[in-house]
Formats: sequence, C-alpha cells, structure tokens
Amino acid sequence: MATFIEDGEREAIEAIRRTVRPGGDARSMRDDAAVLEGGLVISTDCVTFQRHMSEGMGWERFGWTAAAVNISDIASMGARPIGFLAAMALPEDMDSDDIAQIASGMDQCAEFAGTHVVGGDTKPGPGVIAGTALGDMEGRRPMTRDGMRPGDLIAVTGTLGGPAAGMLALENDIEAEGCVLALWVPIPRVEEGIALSSTGKVTSCIDLSDGLSTCLNTLCSESSCGVVVEWDLLPIADGVREVCDSVGHDLKAAVMDWGGEYELLFSFAKADIEALRATGIDFSVIGVAVEDGGVLLRRDEKYQEVGYGSY
Amino acid sequence: MATFIEDGEREAIEAIRRTVRPGGDARSMRDDAAVLEGGLVISTDCVTFQRHMSEGMGWERFGWTAAAVNISDIASMGARPIGFLAAMALPEDMDSDDIAQIASGMDQCAEFAGTHVVGGDTKPGPGVIAGTALGDMEGRRPMTRDGMRPGDLIAVTGTLGGPAAGMLALENDIEAEGCVLALWVPIPRVEEGIALSSTGKVTSCIDLSDGLSTCLNTLCSESSCGVVVEWDLLPIADGVREVCDSVGHDLKAAVMDWGGEYELLFSFAKADIEALRATGIDFSVIGVAVEDGGVLLRRDEKYQEVGYGSY
Repeated sequence: MATFIEDGEREAIEAIRRTVRPGGDARSMRDDAAVLEGGLVISTDCVTFQRHMSEGMGWERFGWTAAAVNISDIASMGARPIGFLAAMALPEDMDSDDIAQIASGMDQCAEFAGTHVVGGDTKPGPGVIAGTALGDMEGRRPMTRDGMRPGDLIAVTGTLGGPAAGMLALENDIEAEGCVLALWVPIPRVEEGIALSSTGKVTSCIDLSDGLSTCLNTLCSESSCGVVVEWDLLPIADGVREVCDSVGHDLKAAVMDWGGEYELLFSFAKADIEALRATGIDFSVIGVAVEDGGVLLRRDEKYQEVGYGSY
Repeated sequence: MATFIEDGEREAIEAIRRTVRPGGDARSMRDDAAVLEGGLVISTDCVTFQRHMSEGMGWERFGWTAAAVNISDIASMGARPIGFLAAMALPEDMDSDDIAQIASGMDQCAEFAGTHVVGGDTKPGPGVIAGTALGDMEGRRPMTRDGMRPGDLIAVTGTLGGPAAGMLALENDIEAEGCVLALWVPIPRVEEGIALSSTGKVTSCIDLSDGLSTCLNTLCSESSCGVVVEWDLLPIADGVREVCDSVGHDLKAAVMDWGGEYELLFSFAKADIEALRATGIDFSVIGVAVEDGGVLLRRDEKYQEVGYGSY
C-alpha cells in the first residue's frame, strides 16, 4: 500500500476520480472548477497555516490569499464570481482579532472580484481555511483544459516568477518589494478570464497556481498534444533576475517550477490573435502547441524537456 | 485580547459577520446556508480527523459524514442538492486506499442525496476535510431561522439522542448498534427538508448539528421569541435510555446537549399542522413558541431554563 505522499497528489486525485460517480458536466474534476447546469461554476481549495503563511505576511493577507486561490480557479474558467465561503478550522489559542483580520482580507479579495463573503463556518482545528468560490458563466462557454490544438499559440497574462522571487527575498533578507507583494497578495485574474472567455476563441485555459511547468504539462495531457515554449518570450517580472542572481537560485526554476502564481495560461488559434488583442487584456505569447512530445523549452537554440514542477 | 476558544465559536462568527460586507440575501451568515440570487443555496463546513473520526468508524463513514454535515445544512433550508465538493488537507503518510475510501463514502452520501461529487482538491495537511454543498430551492421559499412566532408549534424529524448514546456505547464498550450507526452514518434530511419547505408553512428551520439545546436557543435568538419544550414529547431514540442508565450519563444531556445529530428542528403555526402532516414526513411536536423567556424545559411539572449546549 502506498501513502499519499509516495503516490503524489495527482495520483490521489486520480484515485478519487475513479471512485466517485461522474457528475456535473462530463469534465467534472478535470478542470480548475466544476461546471454545473445553468452555467454555474464552483471550486474549493484549502490553504494551511503551515504551508501558506509566511513570516511577515500577516493575517489579512492570508485571508486575501485564501479567497484568491479559489476565485482564481473560477476566473480561469471565465466565470464571474457570485459568492465566496470559508470553512475555517482554527487553533484554540488563536487571537480573535486575528480571525477578524482573516475575514477582512477575504472580504477585500471578494470585493476586488466583485462579490461577497456569503457564508462559512469556524471550529477548533489545526489551522486550515477551505474556501469555496461560486461563479456564473453568464452564457459564455467555460474555458477548459482539453481544447488546445496543434498550431495554437500559448499565452500568459501578466508576469512570471514574482512569488518565487518574493519567497527567496524573504528567506534571504533581500529587498524586493514587488516580488514579495506578488507572493503575499495574489491577484485572481477575474476580468481577464471574463474578457478571454467572452471572445469564444480560447481553446484551453488554466491558472498558474501549480506553476508554469506543471500547468503546461497538464494542458498537454488533457488536450493530447505537446507545446514548445520560447524562453526569451517568458514575461519575467521585475526583480526576479536580480533576486535569483544574488542568492544563486536557478532563474528557470523560479519562473517555471514554483507555484503560487495566479496568472492565466491559455491557448488560441493563431488566426484569432486580433480578437484576443481586442479585449484589451495584457498578455504575452510564450509558445506554440505541437502534435505531441510533451513540453519542450527552447532556450539558447537548444530544446529541453520540461517535466511537472515540484510545487 | 481574547483567544478563539475563550471567546467561543459563536463570538468568532459574530466578529466575522461584523467584518465582512453583507452579501447574498439579507440574512447571509445567519442561517445554516447562504441563499443567493436565483434560489441557489450553498454551505461549507469542515470535519477534522481529530474531532470527528471515532475508533472503528472507518474512512468510508468518515467520508459519508464529511458530505452529510454539509448536505444537511442545505437540506434544512429546503434545497435540493445539486453538487458536493471537498477540499482535503491530508497527512502525508495517509494510505492512498484510505483516501479512496473517503471519496467512496462522500460519493455514497451524495448519491443518497440525489447528487454527485463534482469537484475538490487534495493537498498535504493536518487531516481536515472541508465540504461544500450546493442546492437549488426550485422556486420554494428558503426556511430560515428568523420566522418563528409566539404560538407556533416546535417539531423535530426522526429521533433524538442516538449519536450521543452511540459515542457513550463506544467509549464504554456497550452493545448499541442503532445508536452507533446514528453516530457514524448521519442521515441528512433532504427529502424531509424539500417536503417541509414545499408546504410554505414552515416559519423557521435549523438542523440539529449543534444539538437541541443550542439550536432551540439559536431559533429563539434569531426569531426574537422564547420556547417551552415538553420533556415527555421528546422522541428519544431506541437504546438511548439504556445506554445512559448503564454508564450513569444524564439522559437530558445526551438528548439535548450533544451535537452531531442531523434531524430538522422547525416551527409552524398551529393551524397549519394538517398541511404539515399531509407531507407524509415523520415528525414529533415537542413544544410551543412563546413571547419571550429563552428556552424553558417542562419536566415533571417543573420548568427549567435551558442554555446553549456544550457542543
């Protein structure tokens, strides 16, 4: 018998998928969020004090993060958020003011996303906040992970590597305010997701919460094709190179293998690029989908295979 | 500064209510579940290995319970379940087969409730499962906690005390199969909730997950009235008296102060009792609402005040 950690999270999720009867739409549990009848989109995910609370972050930002990770999951489907809930298992010696700070952070993130904290629960426990975000497709087609086709362009919103560099900066006591904020205050790409899905031209989409390497592999696996990514096209955030240089951390690892980013990774047919540009959403094309071959990174004229990241 | 446990869970929830902007319907976070536009009902709650897993229960029943507690919350509003999700923070050394057992239990409870497990997430963590149940009012009016009026009758579905007696039986190695099953396999009153809400006659409703004493106090507080409960009318489950007698446990405490029951506690005008009976739902009238005075229990011709239970 294998344990959770030996098998890995992906295998545990596969075991769960095999166990439960299929529900919702046919792609239930293969996307960032589930799509239900009537275009409802729902996702749940938890953050733990141990894994997601970093020194200096503060409870308000932790609350924001607990909301952001879930809102990001429905944003990547193109849904408009219509409610957020949190089930909290909190240490018995936790200060009540700190709990209110968490609630305040969740409320601010919900407000940023145009919605509200509508419910939740607290009980004594080991320091886990499980959030649930509910959204509405408003008639748009949900962006899933399985529609990427050979020849499609691959793109990301925003910039990459900020959260990883932020963590490195904190660990090594280096000044890198922008990167640290990217780590502490992840921005769910709600308006971007809505705008992208409203074009009807996006063939696949996923949020980068598991990191670029893993997410590229996931899109390839779900869409049954490969991708070639150009290193020189990756929109690396300001300060990331400097932080990696000063602490001797591999830049590629920071940009591709670290999770905790909430940009959207998506694909579309080359012919549709003008329709995508017309949304006004800021994005960077980083590669192209190919027939097969998994994920290849082209850097300095050489190709290297990219596996799932460690996050 | 006070801690979570000094302040108590109710106060922590009040602090959260004060912090976040109101959303959903006006009663957001004052009922078992939130009601959103279009009659969507949603609730989230977590179970922890430490608090909710009892010896001999097994992972399948634990999974059932994780689903049942949430489905019960939307059932008490009168919603029909349309999806269940689970965010799981699981120990790294947990056996993968055990995780599949949890998923199987959740799936069976979802099937009992006429719905599916539509999504979720797993990650390493301290042993917490946060479930989310989503439901649809299908045009019925949600049953809330605030509509009880003086003169209303108070009733409960099913029987009381089984889960408490089950726990006592396990702790003291006494045979009491029915009670132990009531503890291990809580039944969310889905069809009962739908039938009760479909009458349009129920003035308040709550599930008994916090125990009868607490839930009576909650209905009184939210509805701004009091109740008088008749001890002799309480539908005590088979075996509960015997278990309490043999271990020297107070019967009233087992029946009223213990949580983990999932019957529905509800109120309605006396004149409407025939409409309620016509649903075919099995329920017992246990008392009557009065102008004020909190919760009074009449037993052996004497009245005693009933405070919030300890659960």
